[in-house]
Amino acid sequence: MSILIKGGTVVGPSGAYPADVLVDGETVAAIFAPGQGPAEGPEVIDATGKYVIPGAVDAHTHMELPFGGTHASDTFDTGTRAAAIGGTTTIVDFAVQRYGEVVQDGLAAWHGKADGNCHIDYAFHMIIGGVDDDALKAMDHLVANEGITSFKLFMAYPGVFYSDDGQILRAMQKARENGAMIMMHAENGPAIDVLVKQALERGETDPVHHGLTRPQELEAEATSRAIWLASVAADCPLYIVHLSASKALEQVKAARDLGRNVFAETCPQYLYLTLEDQLGAPGFEGAKWVCSTPLRSKHEPHRADLWQGLRTNDLSVVSTDHCPFCFKDQKELGLGDFSKIPNGIGSVEHRVDLLYQGVVDGKLSLERWVETIATTPARMFGLYPRKGIIAPGSDADIVVYDPGGHTRISVETHHMNMDHSAWEGWEIDGRVDTVLSRGEVISSGGEYTGRAGRGKYVPRALSSYLR
Amino acid sequence: MSILIKGGTVVGPSGAYPADVLVDGETVAAIFAPGQGPAEGPEVIDATGKYVIPGAVDAHTHMELPFGGTHASDTFDTGTRAAAIGGTTTIVDFAVQRYGEVVQDGLAAWHGKADGNCHIDYAFHMIIGGVDDDALKAMDHLVANEGITSFKLFMAYPGVFYSDDGQILRAMQKARENGAMIMMHAENGPAIDVLVKQALERGETDPVHHGLTRPQELEAEATSRAIWLASVAADCPLYIVHLSASKALEQVKAARDLGRNVFAETCPQYLYLTLEDQLGAPGFEGAKWVCSTPLRSKHEPHRADLWQGLRTNDLSVVSTDHCPFCFKDQKELGLGDFSKIPNGIGSVEHRVDLLYQGVVDGKLSLERWVETIATTPARMFGLYPRKGIIAPGSDADIVVYDPGGHTRISVETHHMNMDHSAWEGWEIDGRVDTVLSRGEVISSGGEYTGRAGRGKYVPRALSSYLR
Amino acid sequence: MSILIKGGTVVGPSGAYPADVLVDGETVAAIFAPGQGPAEGPEVIDATGKYVIPGAVDAHTHMELPFGGTHASDTFDTGTRAAAIGGTTTIVDFAVQRYGEVVQDGLAAWHGKADGNCHIDYAFHMIIGGVDDDALKAMDHLVANEGITSFKLFMAYPGVFYSDDGQILRAMQKARENGAMIMMHAENGPAIDVLVKQALERGETDPVHHGLTRPQELEAEATSRAIWLASVAADCPLYIVHLSASKALEQVKAARDLGRNVFAETCPQYLYLTLEDQLGAPGFEGAKWVCSTPLRSKHEPHRADLWQGLRTNDLSVVSTDHCPFCFKDQKELGLGDFSKIPNGIGSVEHRVDLLYQGVVDGKLSLERWVETIATTPARMFGLYPRKGIIAPGSDADIVVYDPGGHTRISVETHHMNMDHSAWEGWEIDGRVDTVLSRGEVISSGGEYTGRAGRGKYVPRALSSYLR
Amino acid sequence: MSILIKGGTVVGPSGAYPADVLVDGETVAAIFAPGQGPAEGPEVIDATGKYVIPGAVDAHTHMELPFGGTHASDTFDTGTRAAAIGGTTTIVDFAVQRYGEVVQDGLAAWHGKADGNCHIDYAFHMIIGGVDDDALKAMDHLVANEGITSFKLFMAYPGVFYSDDGQILRAMQKARENGAMIMMHAENGPAIDVLVKQALERGETDPVHHGLTRPQELEAEATSRAIWLASVAADCPLYIVHLSASKALEQVKAARDLGRNVFAETCPQYLYLTLEDQLGAPGFEGAKWVCSTPLRSKHEPHRADLWQGLRTNDLSVVSTDHCPFCFKDQKELGLGDFSKIPNGIGSVEHRVDLLYQGVVDGKLSLERWVETIATTPARMFGLYPRKGIIAPGSDADIVVYDPGGHTRISVETHHMNMDHSAWEGWEIDGRVDTVLSRGEVISSGGEYTGRAGRGKYVPRALSSYLR
Repeated sequence: MSILIKGGTVVGPSGAYPADVLVDGETVAAIFAPGQGPAEGPEVIDATGKYVIPGAVDAHTHMELPFGGTHASDTFDTGTRAAAIGGTTTIVDFAVQRYGEVVQDGLAAWHGKADGNCHIDYAFHMIIGGVDDDALKAMDHLVANEGITSFKLFMAYPGVFYSDDGQILRAMQKARENGAMIMMHAENGPAIDVLVKQALERGETDPVHHGLTRPQELEAEATSRAIWLASVAADCPLYIVHLSASKALEQVKAARDLGRNVFAETCPQYLYLTLEDQLGAPGFEGAKWVCSTPLRSKHEPHRADLWQGLRTNDLSVVSTDHCPFCFKDQKELGLGDFSKIPNGIGSVEHRVDLLYQGVVDGKLSLERWVETIATTPARMFGLYPRKGIIAPGSDADIVVYDPGGHTRISVETHHMNMDHSAWEGWEIDGRVDTVLSRGEVISSGGEYTGRAGRGKYVPRALSSYLR
Repeated sequence: MSILIKGGTVVGPSGAYPADVLVDGETVAAIFAPGQGPAEGPEVIDATGKYVIPGAVDAHTHMELPFGGTHASDTFDTGTRAAAIGGTTTIVDFAVQRYGEVVQDGLAAWHGKADGNCHIDYAFHMIIGGVDDDALKAMDHLVANEGITSFKLFMAYPGVFYSDDGQILRAMQKARENGAMIMMHAENGPAIDVLVKQALERGETDPVHHGLTRPQELEAEATSRAIWLASVAADCPLYIVHLSASKALEQVKAARDLGRNVFAETCPQYLYLTLEDQLGAPGFEGAKWVCSTPLRSKHEPHRADLWQGLRTNDLSVVSTDHCPFCFKDQKELGLGDFSKIPNGIGSVEHRVDLLYQGVVDGKLSLERWVETIATTPARMFGLYPRKGIIAPGSDADIVVYDPGGHTRISVETHHMNMDHSAWEGWEIDGRVDTVLSRGEVISSGGEYTGRAGRGKYVPRALSSYLR
Repeated sequence: MSILIKGGTVVGPSGAYPADVLVDGETVAAIFAPGQGPAEGPEVIDATGKYVIPGAVDAHTHMELPFGGTHASDTFDTGTRAAAIGGTTTIVDFAVQRYGEVVQDGLAAWHGKADGNCHIDYAFHMIIGGVDDDALKAMDHLVANEGITSFKLFMAYPGVFYSDDGQILRAMQKARENGAMIMMHAENGPAIDVLVKQALERGETDPVHHGLTRPQELEAEATSRAIWLASVAADCPLYIVHLSASKALEQVKAARDLGRNVFAETCPQYLYLTLEDQLGAPGFEGAKWVCSTPLRSKHEPHRADLWQGLRTNDLSVVSTDHCPFCFKDQKELGLGDFSKIPNGIGSVEHRVDLLYQGVVDGKLSLERWVETIATTPARMFGLYPRKGIIAPGSDADIVVYDPGGHTRISVETHHMNMDHSAWEGWEIDGRVDTVLSRGEVISSGGEYTGRAGRGKYVPRALSSYLR
Repeated sequence: MSILIKGGTVVGPSGAYPADVLVDGETVAAIFAPGQGPAEGPEVIDATGKYVIPGAVDAHTHMELPFGGTHASDTFDTGTRAAAIGGTTTIVDFAVQRYGEVVQDGLAAWHGKADGNCHIDYAFHMIIGGVDDDALKAMDHLVANEGITSFKLFMAYPGVFYSDDGQILRAMQKARENGAMIMMHAENGPAIDVLVKQALERGETDPVHHGLTRPQELEAEATSRAIWLASVAADCPLYIVHLSASKALEQVKAARDLGRNVFAETCPQYLYLTLEDQLGAPGFEGAKWVCSTPLRSKHEPHRADLWQGLRTNDLSVVSTDHCPFCFKDQKELGLGDFSKIPNGIGSVEHRVDLLYQGVVDGKLSLERWVETIATTPARMFGLYPRKGIIAPGSDADIVVYDPGGHTRISVETHHMNMDHSAWEGWEIDGRVDTVLSRGEVISSGGEYTGRAGRGKYVPRALSSYLR
């Protein structure tokens, strides 16, 4: 069956042009100058007055992640369904190896969770929680055989995911050999733990202290350190996840000025939300916005600097770090002790919209919107040109976005498995109109027509985004 | 008539994918997944094993430019023919207003030279040699009515093209108002003139002293000054032409780190040639490589830094600054006095090849090759998406490039009107195979089939490349 | 006759220690550990509880300067008397060559003004308003024979003192040869003149527009340009006068980080006063604070940055740029046109006090107070160790400063020839107690006992402060 | 008994002047203008044609340090005697607390080693090898009662002296409270250990691999991290020991540009010696120069950058890190395994000479020589004005230095307890002529007249060098 998306404006990373897109089966068959497509045959989707963009790629999600004695509340089923409705047609989730476990077992477990449950295509990064000889060998195996070409390490969470600098160096050396990308959670965990302990001893137990005990200097330091270690590992490609702070961005910028293969993503929460207005909400309300790295102060230029970083490509990607927890029973685990609040915010459904609002507000060009949410994540993580671009032969993952539409975000209407929204009441001057995943219309005009299990695992190639 | 370019790999600024391109009339009608195009009808160009790229855009040429008592030796006829053969399908040449002249008269003169003589499409920037009230008004007029949206000023050549800082500021303020781009020849002319005079007084008359009297500090200074002045003009968009030196690049980089709308181009000569090896050739030979900004020392990291700047997009464009002079009678005007040597190198025919060699040598990705020679110049100067991209509806300016071919550059074989080549004997591991301009095959397998007069003037929109 | 300054704390540039200072005739004969000096013989000044510091050196004054059709209101008589009372025992004033004049004539004229009229020792810098072959020769002569080893150029005031970049380069090359220091008024005059003209055309005539038409970017630009030109002149020593702005300071800092012989002074007005609070005072009141470089906005971090620059030695000297004009008849020349207000503020009497307040406020150490107002200016301009330090053999220019005293600045009590004070009502937690100039007590407990004509011209050596 | 040092040129941190210095008992009684001192009475030392400088302060020595199963070969007796002969009149050695030990016990042990054995005055820093609650309390005690106001931590040597980032942060917070200085051995130990292990596994066992496994990036990283952590500890004063590398210096420079209380020392070995020429000497010879941080490559600009850092005061102090080991039996412990070579070079006798050679070579001014080896270390570590300056009331620790003398360094003639010299054959265009320690001539014309036990412990105040 074929579909012709007609009358719209195709937006790609270098600009926009009017064109009609012919989908045949699961892929894009052709792109036509307006009106030059087949006059009859395919089903027609009228995209007049709308943007036709590649389905968005969310390179950072944590479906069903075990954390602090509970689990992220979205399953691969609920989470990918919400993603799809929001215009995201591929997620890259994190399989987890914990210290003492076998890497391949962790991967198998994640395949077990996802297999048969996803509404859209998915891939995996691998978290290495215990770098040792076996884990290093496993990295080679995953790159060569499992379609996993990126590995995440943690400089935070001592005793949980934490790698020391020697372990980090070894993993980076391995990645340098096999071509993989190292992803880094860059916060100085041992120093943060001192500040957390001191705060709790002073009786500072509210959610806002989660942010106050994670000063941006400790994110900047870890970011800087990761960059230095990558240089010792012969310039191993490095990708900083969920960068939140001006001083951390400066470190990335300095490395990029040297031509280094250093990249970073930020997330919608850091572009819009703040320590004072959200994390510091009265009572325990702020727990909704406990995530790490934390929201930053509105009295400092973080948000403006991050938007600028997106414009200058010092920030290359916007992901969600989707890691949802319900308020009741989950976030509430940290009542009286902020350090026990499960870390995470759920946004997988809203990223396309939230970033489009940046276009409306003049903070981002239309091209950079598409590039940061779709094209670059696909290139960065070896999914391009199958994903991230509307091109003949590519998977027909396509979103028709209506700049004349309107979206109001609310727990009442969202599809994520959460009992609240971190974005309650936010208004977007635009709307996801139609979503195709591998040629199938799975969401249209607000009606969802996909189903669990239709999403496939996508093995990834090495990054095609290196300098 | 329609043409199907079949079996090739289409390369765009974000990557490459196999596809067939259907040209109908002057524009691209459709792009098909391999084999999905019309089975019969169009003429077929077999691009198997080859790259299919947008026709290159040379944003800096000087056909027939009067300079130092002579004229650049390529006419619009000879120059655009050579460009076409080399894979460049659009040039943006510089119309000139000299001090005391009327801007519109200068433009009319250039239209007069180009009209009916060009083999490929062309546009104009305008050199403003005398910023005053009339010239400022003329800038508005050219933007609104003449398709000229970029204006070049000179910080060098006092008494010829030179603008003082007050004039520069006024022109920038005007550009800020009407949306135009200011292009800047950034060298400190008054200081250079002191050094030139002192050198000549010391009897240093050989061509190499052209370079030695233009130290990179005086390019860096002027670059920095232009950036400061643009900031006073409320962040007027600024484009530094023919950037040649590490320290000048640092200035651009610093501004771009601040998110400023500051851009720069470099040229093939600065990427490959040096003060010692070319400009310092024995006797008067070096005169062939007298250009301003000058070739830089091979003992400093200029070339490596410029290649890196291309990778990091701190340098956005590669143009030629094509300004050819014959050795005999023209370059020889400076025998015994380097300051009388006409300034300029001719490369309009070789840019696509020379930069492709950077891809072969691992200095540039395939995508950046296309982006720096075609897509970005088109976006920067308001020609996109008509030029600079292979997209449905765009002008069918297309180059089929053969990575298995080979090119040897020589005065014996080139098509520019020059009695020598600045690139004599250079070897390229690739070859321009076929060139289409607005749907017409004008060069194929080394045979040229275009003709003077087929190229049209292309009025330009405002830049779509601003941040 | 000899004097023993007893019981005080001697403060020098590296710290403080208790000691008694024996003055014999015009110089310091000895410094004794407390109580070890001669038991009888000399007259005793009791400095118990007080600081004993070298007499301050003001390296930037303009007594009797002709400017805008009038003259600075302090003569060498009134100005040096006020300086003395305020603890300054040496000034370095600026002799002036205007364009078209002979340098030596300018110097002779300034000797004529000062000779026989000064209360304290004095030296001269030379302003070169017209760099040409004769002026360059004169520079050699002044260095070799006249004790003048520093030359000031202007990047502002086109048509008055302005030098173009070629002239600046030539003067710098000359200074590099003969060892002199180039001092620079670093503001981009041609660009400022455009902004001034535009403001007046818009009817913006109030004093505050003097500041608004001289944005810090144009000070930073000129500072940067001077630094680049000095590098072309083989790292000619360069001293930026009256640096007022954060971005200008950044330029100096960057050069100093490279080990360059680049120095800068600031003035008390930039450390304390602002565009909004003083220059923007209601009506024409702000005219009192019209000076160039101008006061800067309090909403930007200029003042904090300048204090920090003093702490880090990126700013090496505090001078006054003393250039007093009366409000009536002088400042009033600019009623209705800020560009006609004579530029200048009078502070020669208050610098020691105003900077001491910085010590009280924790902004500067005691040592840096002495270093920035006395030791470094003496070293910078070839007066050390005769001036700027309390050492055996040095001139007995000594101030006994009482940290328990109190000073209130007012036109009612000051000694400068001005009908107002730029510092009216400012309170200082300290007081100049006693002032010795070449061994003579000229001011004590508020009583002035010096006299015009006792001050001598001090020829200067080359700077001993270079790196 | 009193001594008059007559006819010399006194050199202090801001310059030089001719003066006669009267010593009475243990302190300086007076400084006289030439010839103004007592005509008879005191013994006279003729300093005509010589420099009279404050006795040098070596702020980094390790006498008798246990390391790698052996001890540094100089005792407090032999080491301080050699220091004295070389013009150093105060050392600050490091008392050591190892993990699991009581801080006060470590201090007592070091007092035990030094007491009665020193030829010159001495003080202690304290190494904290195990930061915990008790150690933090001990820091307060040592500052308040023991004259110990600086604490050294290690980012290297995991399992020996290493502190993790949490421990470092806690110690810095404590220092911020009690006013002490944190000294940091800044190398990333965990990462270095990986590189060392890998090198040994590859059979790279020669001394040069000691340097190759400690790349400058891992010094720069740790330096940067220490600076970040100090900022989290509310700008705790931080002093980087034995800085050896350009990139580490850049970190210090950046912090100092921000006005931070960040300081660094370098050592003579990093100013003169290199990885290739010394550490890479044939066979096992290079073991003589195994020290950490290591000697750096001569193909990189380390040495030039360090000299520049001394000129710009980005490096404030030159210490020796004197840690001597004999070649036989000690250095030889590492035959076949560079990681077992005891780390250290002995230079305590030669620092004054080696740095004076920098003056001769035009790399350092006479003032900076004195400032970096005497005045600043005294101010930095709370010994000023008792030490580090020739001022009335100060300890009469004085060196008469003969610029007309000559010194050749050799194991044949040196006084350190070493069977080789790291400086064998180096020639100095100057010579330590006479050394006074607290008023006593202990070395004169090459004859040593001091004795063990005459040196006293000097309790230190807080630093007087903070900004």
